Amino acid sequence: MNKIRIGIVGYGNLGQSVELGIRQNEDMELVGVFTRRDPSTIKTVTKGVNVFTMDEAKQMTDQIDVMVLCGGSMSDMPVQGPEFAGLFNTVDGYDTHAKIPEYFAVMNKNALEAKKVCIIASGWDPGMFSINRLYAEAILPEGNTYTFWGKGISQGHSDAIRRVKGVKDAKQYTIPKESAIEAVRRGEMPELTTREKHGRECFVVVEEGADKAQIEHEIKTMPNYFADYDTEVHFITEEELEKNHHGLPHGGLVIRHGRTGLNEEHNHVIEYRLDLDSNPNFTANVLVAFVRAAYRLNQEGVSGAKTVIDIAPAYLSSKSAEELRKSLI
Amino acid sequence: MNKIRIGIVGYGNLGQSVELGIRQNEDMELVGVFTRRDPSTIKTVTKGVNVFTMDEAKQMTDQIDVMVLCGGSMSDMPVQGPEFAGLFNTVDGYDTHAKIPEYFAVMNKNALEAKKVCIIASGWDPGMFSINRLYAEAILPEGNTYTFWGKGISQGHSDAIRRVKGVKDAKQYTIPKESAIEAVRRGEMPELTTREKHGRECFVVVEEGADKAQIEHEIKTMPNYFADYDTEVHFITEEELEKNHHGLPHGGLVIRHGRTGLNEEHNHVIEYRLDLDSNPNFTANVLVAFVRAAYRLNQEGVSGAKTVIDIAPAYLSSKSAEELRKSLI
Repeated sequence: MNKIRIGIVGYGNLGQSVELGIRQNEDMELVGVFTRRDPSTIKTVTKGVNVFTMDEAKQMTDQIDVMVLCGGSMSDMPVQGPEFAGLFNTVDGYDTHAKIPEYFAVMNKNALEAKKVCIIASGWDPGMFSINRLYAEAILPEGNTYTFWGKGISQGHSDAIRRVKGVKDAKQYTIPKESAIEAVRRGEMPELTTREKHGRECFVVVEEGADKAQIEHEIKTMPNYFADYDTEVHFITEEELEKNHHGLPHGGLVIRHGRTGLNEEHNHVIEYRLDLDSNPNFTANVLVAFVRAAYRLNQEGVSGAKTVIDIAPAYLSSKSAEELRKSLI
Repeated sequence: MNKIRIGIVGYGNLGQSVELGIRQNEDMELVGVFTRRDPSTIKTVTKGVNVFTMDEAKQMTDQIDVMVLCGGSMSDMPVQGPEFAGLFNTVDGYDTHAKIPEYFAVMNKNALEAKKVCIIASGWDPGMFSINRLYAEAILPEGNTYTFWGKGISQGHSDAIRRVKGVKDAKQYTIPKESAIEAVRRGEMPELTTREKHGRECFVVVEEGADKAQIEHEIKTMPNYFADYDTEVHFITEEELEKNHHGLPHGGLVIRHGRTGLNEEHNHVIEYRLDLDSNPNFTANVLVAFVRAAYRLNQEGVSGAKTVIDIAPAYLSSKSAEELRKSLI
């Protein structure tokens, strides 16, 4: 069997997680990591991984079947995505929800020209949560869908706290409100405010002599990030932060309540829930599953940009159609 | 807009539920119900529905886009499925898991010859649970998947109790064991026996003078159905059965625990849960969503038998690809 030959573009948390995810799939192999840094400075998580400069990629189109784009959505991917879409099949986790149509358009154009398949906005939200929102809405047309995130670390909110004067380090947990989830499950179809859906819990290490009351006030009143939420602030030591808050757990749920029956007398709840020890590891594993889909679709002659909802689930499995019908359906 | 024109084959609980499900979708219309009974004896749930004999169907291939097959999997569908696959696009909820490969083969042959699309084994298990087993396994290759059913009425088990001498009527609930679900969530990857996964609760109405102790013994020791389970038997009156156990609730969950990380140190749980007031209503709504997929695929020139995992999620939605990328991804 020919293994699917994979390249990783960008080598932060996500890129490192893709390296590990590929090892869980016998039909895949990692050709190398592509970085903007000096390759000689990169120490890969597992041994024997080749590290290349970004520029070397374009000479390697015959050695790599699918590139997994692991840069940031804000500034890396809008540049890297279209470049790589013109050379390789790609999979990415582009997650700026509002700009997905725009990103899709340019990826689609370049992928069509290059006769490649580019799967965008994969991961879990966007990604698996999108898939579940779609299925639930299609099955229960009369109903409401709710997405809750957490309990988990929000990198963006942790960064925002770190920018407050006097803060040395911080971690922020987004926490879904059980009362809201229960109201949805009970079929109340609640209209939930931002505050009613999620709470925010902050663990903050301050610099010596910093004004804690002032820092707490600045965090809790920060527009967009915290002002609209019930926010708890805990001041802890650097050691406590390192010991108890070093991971990147996350998760959440998509829940839809809908009604059926002659008089809409029957209530139904569809719930998809993730509970993840490592957000980057799980996101990477979703990308890696979609690598298989990108590869196979392209082998079948398909090209263009796709999102996760455009791909039949069977393309993600390493098992044959016959095996799946026999053992999994 | 041309509506998708739908026929219902077989008019029991499921067929009646499909009739209601179609009303929730503006892009669909019900052309009629096809029955083996005398059409004049059928009273449809909603007004103005045409009722035809099975034989009339073959003259109506230009009036119906998709037939929803609502007969039983045991004896109706193995005959009706292949017949209708040669004439119409079809969707069915064939649920004899062990015979799906065989049923697929004959449906595929006839559908290919007739240039139609036939989606088989839709519903929730097989169906949405199959889809979720596949996604979860593909994302977390190192892990275990568990399927739990209930709390809900099992028709087969209720029927089995009714066959016991002295029993007038009965309803049986399948109940998943919370202790087992919790063990899976905790990442213990338990090997669960039949008894550890589900319990069975029976509500039984007996004939006058019947030997309750003997009936309870016969139920609890019945091979295949009850002997391998913790079974509770409650004797109640006919009025209580009618009042408290007249519905057909069901549900269940697919849950996968998997590990990632350099040393598999990170635990992840993916959970898909259904809580349904009406098993036939929900099953019907899944079939109806796949009607849209069958219709569209056939419009694109696709033919042959498909299962739910062969169909990209977007085909189930009434929204355009652009709208989905903008609002749902």
